[in-house]
Amino acid sequence: MQFLSDNAAAVHPAVWKAMMAADVADSPYDNDALSRELDGAFSALFGRECAALWVATGTAANCLALASMVQPHGGVVCHREAHIEMDEAGAPGFFLHGAKLLLADGESAKVTPESVGAVIDPIRDDVHQVQPHAISITQASEYGCVYRPQEVRALAALAKARGLGMHMDGARFGNAVAFLGCAPGEACAGVDALSFGFVKNGGLGAEAIVFFDPEAARMIRYRRKRAGHLQSKGRFMAAQILAMLEGDLWLDNAAATNAAAAEIAGAAGNRLLHPVEANEVFLSCTADEREALRGQGFGFYDWGDDAARLVMSWDARDEHVSALAQALSRL
Amino acid sequence: MQFLSDNAAAVHPAVWKAMMAADVADSPYDNDALSRELDGAFSALFGRECAALWVATGTAANCLALASMVQPHGGVVCHREAHIEMDEAGAPGFFLHGAKLLLADGESAKVTPESVGAVIDPIRDDVHQVQPHAISITQASEYGCVYRPQEVRALAALAKARGLGMHMDGARFGNAVAFLGCAPGEACAGVDALSFGFVKNGGLGAEAIVFFDPEAARMIRYRRKRAGHLQSKGRFMAAQILAMLEGDLWLDNAAATNAAAAEIAGAAGNRLLHPVEANEVFLSCTADEREALRGQGFGFYDWGDDAARLVMSWDARDEHVSALAQALSRL
Amino acid sequence: MQFLSDNAAAVHPAVWKAMMAADVADSPYDNDALSRELDGAFSALFGRECAALWVATGTAANCLALASMVQPHGGVVCHREAHIEMDEAGAPGFFLHGAKLLLADGESAKVTPESVGAVIDPIRDDVHQVQPHAISITQASEYGCVYRPQEVRALAALAKARGLGMHMDGARFGNAVAFLGCAPGEACAGVDALSFGFVKNGGLGAEAIVFFDPEAARMIRYRRKRAGHLQSKGRFMAAQILAMLEGDLWLDNAAATNAAAAEIAGAAGNRLLHPVEANEVFLSCTADEREALRGQGFGFYDWGDDAARLVMSWDARDEHVSALAQALSRL
Amino acid sequence: MQFLSDNAAAVHPAVWKAMMAADVADSPYDNDALSRELDGAFSALFGRECAALWVATGTAANCLALASMVQPHGGVVCHREAHIEMDEAGAPGFFLHGAKLLLADGESAKVTPESVGAVIDPIRDDVHQVQPHAISITQASEYGCVYRPQEVRALAALAKARGLGMHMDGARFGNAVAFLGCAPGEACAGVDALSFGFVKNGGLGAEAIVFFDPEAARMIRYRRKRAGHLQSKGRFMAAQILAMLEGDLWLDNAAATNAAAAEIAGAAGNRLLHPVEANEVFLSCTADEREALRGQGFGFYDWGDDAARLVMSWDARDEHVSALAQALSRL
Repeated sequence: MQFLSDNAAAVHPAVWKAMMAADVADSPYDNDALSRELDGAFSALFGRECAALWVATGTAANCLALASMVQPHGGVVCHREAHIEMDEAGAPGFFLHGAKLLLADGESAKVTPESVGAVIDPIRDDVHQVQPHAISITQASEYGCVYRPQEVRALAALAKARGLGMHMDGARFGNAVAFLGCAPGEACAGVDALSFGFVKNGGLGAEAIVFFDPEAARMIRYRRKRAGHLQSKGRFMAAQILAMLEGDLWLDNAAATNAAAAEIAGAAGNRLLHPVEANEVFLSCTADEREALRGQGFGFYDWGDDAARLVMSWDARDEHVSALAQALSRL
Repeated sequence: MQFLSDNAAAVHPAVWKAMMAADVADSPYDNDALSRELDGAFSALFGRECAALWVATGTAANCLALASMVQPHGGVVCHREAHIEMDEAGAPGFFLHGAKLLLADGESAKVTPESVGAVIDPIRDDVHQVQPHAISITQASEYGCVYRPQEVRALAALAKARGLGMHMDGARFGNAVAFLGCAPGEACAGVDALSFGFVKNGGLGAEAIVFFDPEAARMIRYRRKRAGHLQSKGRFMAAQILAMLEGDLWLDNAAATNAAAAEIAGAAGNRLLHPVEANEVFLSCTADEREALRGQGFGFYDWGDDAARLVMSWDARDEHVSALAQALSRL
Repeated sequence: MQFLSDNAAAVHPAVWKAMMAADVADSPYDNDALSRELDGAFSALFGRECAALWVATGTAANCLALASMVQPHGGVVCHREAHIEMDEAGAPGFFLHGAKLLLADGESAKVTPESVGAVIDPIRDDVHQVQPHAISITQASEYGCVYRPQEVRALAALAKARGLGMHMDGARFGNAVAFLGCAPGEACAGVDALSFGFVKNGGLGAEAIVFFDPEAARMIRYRRKRAGHLQSKGRFMAAQILAMLEGDLWLDNAAATNAAAAEIAGAAGNRLLHPVEANEVFLSCTADEREALRGQGFGFYDWGDDAARLVMSWDARDEHVSALAQALSRL
Repeated sequence: MQFLSDNAAAVHPAVWKAMMAADVADSPYDNDALSRELDGAFSALFGRECAALWVATGTAANCLALASMVQPHGGVVCHREAHIEMDEAGAPGFFLHGAKLLLADGESAKVTPESVGAVIDPIRDDVHQVQPHAISITQASEYGCVYRPQEVRALAALAKARGLGMHMDGARFGNAVAFLGCAPGEACAGVDALSFGFVKNGGLGAEAIVFFDPEAARMIRYRRKRAGHLQSKGRFMAAQILAMLEGDLWLDNAAATNAAAAEIAGAAGNRLLHPVEANEVFLSCTADEREALRGQGFGFYDWGDDAARLVMSWDARDEHVSALAQALSRL
């Protein structure tokens, strides 16, 4: 009964099926028929013209997206607990050739126009200080919280007013949309480039970078190849993504994990450290309690000394979720 | 009847089977059971201790391997038609932070101690010139020719004598070993890091970087993550490679494509531009002849104005190969 | 009566004299007689063998020094108000190819083993997080405070225990030594590379990078050239530095500015925001008071809304310093 | 009697005088009165609006100029014997974050539209190959030859037609203008950014980067600081350049060295390996002859096994030049 992470979950059968179906001769790289469907598929999904590139990982997606808007001498404003700051091994510094992350505060790993302003307002426009070139936000956030459309819009408006690019790390974008119950385009309104995650949600090894200005994708095609991320059998990458989009599988899987998290949250009561809006639950929990839970067969990560993180995977079994909820209730 | 390239061929059934079998819960990244088997599997294959990392592409494999031996202010000696020079979009400049490729000559895209010496001997050891830090050779070469063990040894000895690292781009390493009929370790004797290719040979999207000094792999694990190449469901990467190693599938597939190329070569007679030692055939061929071949249903790339490149894939059908051979004979 | 900064002060007559004397034919770059004296001069000063390179700016000195100890995927622990973090336009990210600054706290811009530990202890030794490769401290600190020898030793011991390099930004190293009254080597005990500043102290445009492991200087000679910092008439760079070392001019100038700061500090009473140990005075001061001071002809920078920064230059006139002291007393 | 290089020559008295005169309090960096004069001075010289930045070296000037027109994934077409390729330690790779030099041929280190076309025409516009972003030419060339205005124009037209930036390395721009006898703007017609050298021509350590689109200079101001090239006492940098511009000192010095070279060329007869159009003379010369010349007190560099390079400095004494001419006549 594992709740460690959603990042190593099983691959959805529909994804396998699509990959097997793609095992026919076609052009290499992204010249195959499936890869050429991506722009259209995402344009349909978002109701506006966009261009989409596949890559194998969220780190590559985030950093290549940012490369479209950040010069080597610039900076990216993000939350100080953002994945790009905490968990990507300095990849932004690599892909952006030394550009810097500028760290903002905010509840539950969400930044606000105020917290972003607190970072960028004191930066003098002189050559001695790293100037901001972009804002990056995570939807849903690293603590499983979701930016409301008006929150995204306010940040995008700030970005636009300051001449900054706007990036969204959507490793769990599906969870955010499922929570909001809105059109996908509402959940990322005003964003220039979106890392749209599928691996945590049923995919095998394919994420999409969606550029809402198709022209911005042009340079990134060169950068993707240059970063060793242009796979020669790219049809298998596109196949995964198209399978996830087909019939809104991405949304259904995300909704199911959100529901599981809600069930856990209901049982966790006032232990909750953050609102549970996506598929992650952070709760206060003593070492003894954690040991007790583990003794009952539940796997999860400690979160510091007095807390635990529980993540719902799309393939978590209902009875395991219920068992966990009951175990939490009994604590 | 396509002979365009081997880089978009089908995935071998054994690879699919292994991937499906890997679709069970395990640790993320490269902490899963399969990924942890890689070091042992390659150590057994090469008869000496080595460390191996999976990555999705040959470009990433080559550049990460080189990153273990080249400082940003250094240079890599390679053939002027090497893949890293011609076809990787400047990826070495990215992964090596600005290091430079130093171009050597040689027949059939193979360098020699003399041609490498002609590049490095004139370099003064002063701070105004880029100093060589490594030699990179391609086995089999970009023209389908194979370094004999003594040739590899001589280059490795030169590298060692000059304090240079030694890298081998083995995108078609299987073809080289199949041609040589030697132990795999003989085909890369003295090499520090080998990019061992599987994608062209039956894999889906996994190559191995083999470090013959396991310690050298340590830093590259950080660099792989930093380059966005550490996939979270890494078990599917390892599964592909292990399936290819199992029962020497990599070698059998390569031998079959070599045999197909030999059949074509036999029919091509004195049209051959390079010895046919692996799975690629370069032959002189007028535009009219190429049109005639295409009219008969054969697909391949032009190679300049007066030549064609024909590449055998592991999944090429025997009757297609024979048909091509006959067509060439008839020209 | 300017107290804005020491970074644009006049050039000391002894420096001019030495530069003029260097205006004779000699070898280019750093092969001239004067540049070749630097290693010996610093070895004598520090009582141990060291190697020294000139560069034009403190930013170049800091970043090239760090390049000897930090890999592109690593990090540098420094104070969050360190010059390399705040005022060098992201130069560390450029020279270190994307390496990251890891920000520590501490009074008066001085870090401690504890505050450094608070940064590096939580870093898991896994590939997802940027690993520390070096510690950088500023002597005297950005708030004009001086690390005592035992403080430097404790940090150097921590660095050594963790396998980290140890860098000291000594843009105002002379002020620190003058304050401590110790041997220069005591003020940087355990440091691997020191940026030894002269420009703020009477030089025109030459700083020294002193490597206490001469071998470490080798690679940096290549990096200096590669960064465009190897001037062809290097003899004028060396001449400045040798003139500053001659007869301890660097120390006398620093002592004089320290004394001036002490005089101001005495007049500032409990307005002082930081101990005045070098040539900088930070004091609380309302906008009205600042306006009053400026009305009397004193130039200085605001430091936020309620404070001022006053910096003593080596060429500040005694009567101006006394006038400022009196003006402060009268506030 | 040294003819080794012009890069370590004496500093012109007018430059010293201007530097001494600049030794008064002013704003730091490039906010001083003199630095603020540069844009106007170069605009007047070239008869059009331009923006100019000082840096200490030609390497920094070249690479920062190129940074205004080349993306990290792009390439710069230059002659295979260009200074940026041969003698700058890989600095373009550093400043351009891994961008690549694409090497063109041409007599006397001058490229032509044809030789540039031979490099860029075969580059497919796909993501596998490094795309050209700029052309860089050296005026006068590394072999002392001068591009005629129509040659510069033809290359600039090619650059414009292909969407490439156009850079001129003018380390010896003065010599080129002196040879051509044209307006300075004619010698660099169509160029986007010019590295205008002064160090070889009487300066101490200041070169100018002249941007003919002033807007292009904006980003480079950040890059200059980030590269550690923004000196705090920048007034001494500007002073040198203004002194060299004053009364066309740059042109007079260059004309004098051209005349000296012409005298040597006259004596060298059919030994000349390249037309002598600037201040460098390359001549065939056996080892015995070189030894004989050195025995008479002449210093110069060997140029391979059978040639010598003789460079005239602005401070070379007429009698030394005449003595050399006579010695050559006697050979």
